[in-house]
Amino acid sequence: MSETDRGTETKVDEAESAALDLANVSDADRSAALRAVADAIEDAEERVLAANEKDVAAAEERLEAGDYTRAFVDRLTLDAAKIESIAEMVRSVAAQDDPLGETLAARRLDDALELYEVGVPIGVVATVFESRPDALVQIAALALKSGNAVILKGGSEATHSNRVLFDVVRDATCAGSSESEREGESPRDGERERPRDASATMPDGWAQLIEAREDVDTLLGMDESVDLVMPRGSSAFVQYVQDNTKIPVLGHTEGVCHVYVDRDADLGMAADVAFDAKVQYPAVCNAVETLLVHESVADDFLPGMVERYADAGVELRGDADVREIVDVDPASEADWSREYGDLVLSLKVVDSLDAAVDHVNAYGSKHTESILTEDADRAGDFMTRVDAASVFHNASTRFADGYRYGLGAEVGISTGKIHARGPVGLDGLTTYKYYLEGDGQLVASYAGENPRPFLHEEFEGEWVPGHLASDQ
Amino acid sequence: MSETDRGTETKVDEAESAALDLANVSDADRSAALRAVADAIEDAEERVLAANEKDVAAAEERLEAGDYTRAFVDRLTLDAAKIESIAEMVRSVAAQDDPLGETLAARRLDDALELYEVGVPIGVVATVFESRPDALVQIAALALKSGNAVILKGGSEATHSNRVLFDVVRDATCAGSSESEREGESPRDGERERPRDASATMPDGWAQLIEAREDVDTLLGMDESVDLVMPRGSSAFVQYVQDNTKIPVLGHTEGVCHVYVDRDADLGMAADVAFDAKVQYPAVCNAVETLLVHESVADDFLPGMVERYADAGVELRGDADVREIVDVDPASEADWSREYGDLVLSLKVVDSLDAAVDHVNAYGSKHTESILTEDADRAGDFMTRVDAASVFHNASTRFADGYRYGLGAEVGISTGKIHARGPVGLDGLTTYKYYLEGDGQLVASYAGENPRPFLHEEFEGEWVPGHLASDQ
Repeated sequence: MSETDRGTETKVDEAESAALDLANVSDADRSAALRAVADAIEDAEERVLAANEKDVAAAEERLEAGDYTRAFVDRLTLDAAKIESIAEMVRSVAAQDDPLGETLAARRLDDALELYEVGVPIGVVATVFESRPDALVQIAALALKSGNAVILKGGSEATHSNRVLFDVVRDATCAGSSESEREGESPRDGERERPRDASATMPDGWAQLIEAREDVDTLLGMDESVDLVMPRGSSAFVQYVQDNTKIPVLGHTEGVCHVYVDRDADLGMAADVAFDAKVQYPAVCNAVETLLVHESVADDFLPGMVERYADAGVELRGDADVREIVDVDPASEADWSREYGDLVLSLKVVDSLDAAVDHVNAYGSKHTESILTEDADRAGDFMTRVDAASVFHNASTRFADGYRYGLGAEVGISTGKIHARGPVGLDGLTTYKYYLEGDGQLVASYAGENPRPFLHEEFEGEWVPGHLASDQ
Repeated sequence: MSETDRGTETKVDEAESAALDLANVSDADRSAALRAVADAIEDAEERVLAANEKDVAAAEERLEAGDYTRAFVDRLTLDAAKIESIAEMVRSVAAQDDPLGETLAARRLDDALELYEVGVPIGVVATVFESRPDALVQIAALALKSGNAVILKGGSEATHSNRVLFDVVRDATCAGSSESEREGESPRDGERERPRDASATMPDGWAQLIEAREDVDTLLGMDESVDLVMPRGSSAFVQYVQDNTKIPVLGHTEGVCHVYVDRDADLGMAADVAFDAKVQYPAVCNAVETLLVHESVADDFLPGMVERYADAGVELRGDADVREIVDVDPASEADWSREYGDLVLSLKVVDSLDAAVDHVNAYGSKHTESILTEDADRAGDFMTRVDAASVFHNASTRFADGYRYGLGAEVGISTGKIHARGPVGLDGLTTYKYYLEGDGQLVASYAGENPRPFLHEEFEGEWVPGHLASDQ
């Protein structure tokens, strides 16, 4: 039976069951399994490239029909170097510190009554992601390293690539995915040079692939079984997920980011940062969409900046104050809350730092904001008063990214304020659990007429099950 | 204009604006404001008691009509001692460590490019709570200490009490709540013995009271402005909130908690804990609903336990194995997932620790689970494999509570796995923000042909705005 034939409910149930087991797999075993995935991806290069060719061929047809852009097809396309970098990414996730088992707090409630708050996986995490085939492997790797079962739904444009990559990940980690179950699938072209090793001991079903859009709707209805859903992709799609599920959602619909050039900015630095933030990769959510310029430097700053943007093909829209200084199209009210995702930028002159903060808090999407200034107090003022996941001083908004932040990789970027903010890596895939060790304590002793008082003393210590009993 | 006349949208907008300012109020000022609240509550004792009398009189009528229980009316009733304990609770929240501003991580991405993850308030938190008037003050105090604006909706049975308590909290913290706005309200009976002091400097509008059920629906629709909603009260109501909002929800619908008496339990201790967990306060969510007993101790344990429960008026329901040992009513399948919230308990014999774990994971509500055993390995096995916010060894489930955990107080108990689990105190009302300090870095330098590598070194340090510039 192929993955596509099995029902989404079955897959989610399997993931839920696997999650309970995976929560207690050691970091050594999870990391060994990830290294086996990396090896298996390298071994499967031919099969992955063959599948990817099918996706790319279909995409090329739609490129000719005008449905897709060249950049879109490029992102979909794998080659030997990209496969090697995917394998290396998996190895780097394996090498990260164990995100689980950390004692976050230890508190003695009373003699022989000890409370421990310990990091644990979330459980079942569902992700719906765009058409870059490396996304499937990245998300699966982060999920496994953090002990979570994962439901993977990739873009339909990458169906063939995702199917093969998923098979490789599953076969490298689960002994139970028997060959006979997959009869009728495409043969494996002699790729099994390395023997299936002992690392294929992850709980069967920890990773699940779903493919059809209607399966997403089934998934979104399973709030009893799925603990978190992380949608990536278009704003409209993320909004659709938020509107159609009771499962907690982590993600972002829009990235309306600002760069604010303060009156005390180093204008040369500001020009470089503002340019990088728009031009280096305009299609992504951490690119700047509105440039705010303090009125006292606008005359000096704007003419050269506008020329530099224009040379790079950036379409500019300004408010009335901007248009008194430089010749650009007028910006409308709607421009201030638009994520262009392209070489388009709106420009606005503000008369104070307060006005910049107010504009950002009114129109920003709580993603990433940057101030350029040489005045430390003004930097601090802007950074503490702006409400966003990431607020930068003298740096490009484009740094807001899990890899650049040193998180290893990211499953997404959150503009919500609950659980995880900004780029979400391994830590964002964990939660905690309270363990209480006692020796028969009753709440009745701490209530009523002569209640026993609590101690509530913090202490340093790791939870060792039953250690109070063995002390005796 | 009274609180009831102003629209919910207006109130939420005011809270959203106040939240931005409150995020930057110092702990010293927030705590001083809380101490002023405690003083003001003591000063307002007569007015609070007069308002509470109206609520209690109405409730007594409904008690006679059979709508309410005596316990319900008792919980609603305030007296001088309860008011004093409310004031003390506020002072204890004020005395807690500042939950904000902590540097959770500091990482050097490159020379002069430093990333800091810093604790900040969530923003606007909405709470809908049951009819204990002390709940309003407790929630408001936790919100203010953690720098959050708060929307408060109490039970209609406590309307008069809540209105006066809300006025006291607001007047003690906000200078801007001008007298003229509240003309026509009941006069204050000479309670202003202490002058309004300098602590009344919290941002106007940080606390908002809403009263009508239809206002709750308006509130639940304002997902752009409200960052978190925490419903307390009946399962049906919490479910209603979860089903009718896109705002992240923290709370619990049910508390189906278990006590498992293992084959290696100290049976005397087990009997005391199982008794406490059911009888000490059966109406609350952390009371036990199903007692699981290992088959090898069932003959020894059940007869005495059942007699003790029966003497305390506990109605018992058992599975077939239990009924072979003791004479109790049969339990149906539905009993295993029921939160009785009363002196009712279901009993089940299990043939192994595995069976106990499976039963808890199948029927529990991820709230609180307890194992009684003298075997440390078996304790660890149960505790790591059971998926619940709190898992106890040799202690009563009734300990799952913010006050007992040493959190100072709680805004609720979460059975979800995202953001905060179990009893939610000050930490659960915070999130974090990334601050990046640079000196003009561009992402272009770290991409392309000869990318500059990242350092990604963790270091110890607090974020000081602009300190890189001032080093130079």
